[in-house]
Amino acid sequence: MCQVCFGVDVGGTTVKLGLVTQDGELLEKQEFVSAHDVGEMFDNIAAHMKEVMGHFSDYQCVGAGVGVPGPVVEERLVHGCANLGWGDVDVAGELGRRTGLPVKVANDANLAAMGEMWQGAGRGCRDLVLLTVGTGVGGGLITGGRMITGATGGGGEVGHIPTSFHPDWQCGCGKYGCLEATASASGIIRAARQFSPFKEQERVTAKDVFDAAKDGDQNALRVVTEAGHALGHCAAILTCVLNPEIILIGGGVSAAGRMLMEPVEETFRLEAFGPSSHIPFARAQLGNDAGILGGAAMFFCE
Amino acid sequence: MCQVCFGVDVGGTTVKLGLVTQDGELLEKQEFVSAHDVGEMFDNIAAHMKEVMGHFSDYQCVGAGVGVPGPVVEERLVHGCANLGWGDVDVAGELGRRTGLPVKVANDANLAAMGEMWQGAGRGCRDLVLLTVGTGVGGGLITGGRMITGATGGGGEVGHIPTSFHPDWQCGCGKYGCLEATASASGIIRAARQFSPFKEQERVTAKDVFDAAKDGDQNALRVVTEAGHALGHCAAILTCVLNPEIILIGGGVSAAGRMLMEPVEETFRLEAFGPSSHIPFARAQLGNDAGILGGAAMFFCE
Repeated sequence: MCQVCFGVDVGGTTVKLGLVTQDGELLEKQEFVSAHDVGEMFDNIAAHMKEVMGHFSDYQCVGAGVGVPGPVVEERLVHGCANLGWGDVDVAGELGRRTGLPVKVANDANLAAMGEMWQGAGRGCRDLVLLTVGTGVGGGLITGGRMITGATGGGGEVGHIPTSFHPDWQCGCGKYGCLEATASASGIIRAARQFSPFKEQERVTAKDVFDAAKDGDQNALRVVTEAGHALGHCAAILTCVLNPEIILIGGGVSAAGRMLMEPVEETFRLEAFGPSSHIPFARAQLGNDAGILGGAAMFFCE
Repeated sequence: MCQVCFGVDVGGTTVKLGLVTQDGELLEKQEFVSAHDVGEMFDNIAAHMKEVMGHFSDYQCVGAGVGVPGPVVEERLVHGCANLGWGDVDVAGELGRRTGLPVKVANDANLAAMGEMWQGAGRGCRDLVLLTVGTGVGGGLITGGRMITGATGGGGEVGHIPTSFHPDWQCGCGKYGCLEATASASGIIRAARQFSPFKEQERVTAKDVFDAAKDGDQNALRVVTEAGHALGHCAAILTCVLNPEIILIGGGVSAAGRMLMEPVEETFRLEAFGPSSHIPFARAQLGNDAGILGGAAMFFCE
């Protein structure tokens, strides 16, 4: 009997869940709005899982791998999810009780890296770094095939690596000089707003800055280049620490393409420790499905 | 029958080996000069192990954990040890063939961290960082109870983390701005040599610089303080990446004590990510026995 597993990606806005075969095929996917009450959230997830499983009753479901936007310990407990208004929640207990399935839980950024390792741009690797550059900068770090979760679920908080870029800019975390303050979409917008025409615009997106840079705006290009240097610097740091086989870049900001990746790689090749300075960069491949496939990877990819 | 294990710490100058019980008691220790021929080296190690085992024939020996000063993969192969003039060596094969024992191999800095976790200052932890600050800066990184070795054995090369301290100083690795160029004994000496009286002295040791700083030499104090800031900065980086429970500082430079640790902790508390910024620092406890106990930990501490 073919084995399948649920991957569940719990976000602040929506929940995405899918049923995945042991070969990594995504059989069915559903997406629905997040409930902010914990009980209602897990009632909804369990109901959707039941519905999907009804379509594949001749498969054997071995469990559910769940990603949540917060620090996870022991593959079951999350200690607070700001985006969901959650305090401590026993995610494995809540979902296991409602479904009768074994449940494993991880931080969503780590889970995306597991997904990329299993079925995406990191296929075949056991040591990889995923930098997810969107509104913030998140990281999923895999060493020897396992996620780095840390003592209290705070492993891979690469967006808060201290840097000497913009040492006077405060990050949302309260510190100064975090990678995220320079290299995220928010950081890029903040930097661009120092200059015309962005200074005068009511609304600026990272894409506006990329488009202006493409059209030859030197200030915009400088802002994107600096974000790239900051990312390359932190990629070099992570390479000294973890000695990965590949570095993956995902998230909305990675859509900037070569304009961003050239300064990333330039700084990386200069700053990475010799034996690792040649390793490849690649774009993450799985997009919104990374968390679902990562959830299944917690069961199928050991 | 009480189980025992050999820990073997292979260095460029000497080999230290010891027989360790499953409770972490070091029953007997031997130290002898390193041979540069690979075959002779392992003949010597096997002969010393046989001699020691003869004194404890009523114990059951389960294996040997070996630390080498180079990048190790698959717990058996080392890809070059500059200090020993070795190319690729199948350490587990060489020693296993001569002793009939299961052999596990690791990088010496990683193994010291395993030793500290099992029987030293990191006892009870599963996530820890050991910074060994001597002639260079080495690191042993443990996540979830396992050493970070990386794809090609280059995990934990924290001495080569790029920093903005002395960006124009070249490190032995060829790069500029490495942590090691600022925070090692060599870096401290180099920085102190910019000033009198060190500029004029033929021979300067890190201890000379510490002693001068204690005696009120402001330049010497500034040099030690800067080394501390660089270490604190990198400890903060490692905390963002790994979320450890504790950070241990070992090696000769750590003998500087509070003079060094105050700037380390000052920078760390400023730069470490919030949830981890309160974690303790401690001095490594095992000194020269760390590698021997770490070798045994590869068998006894899972």
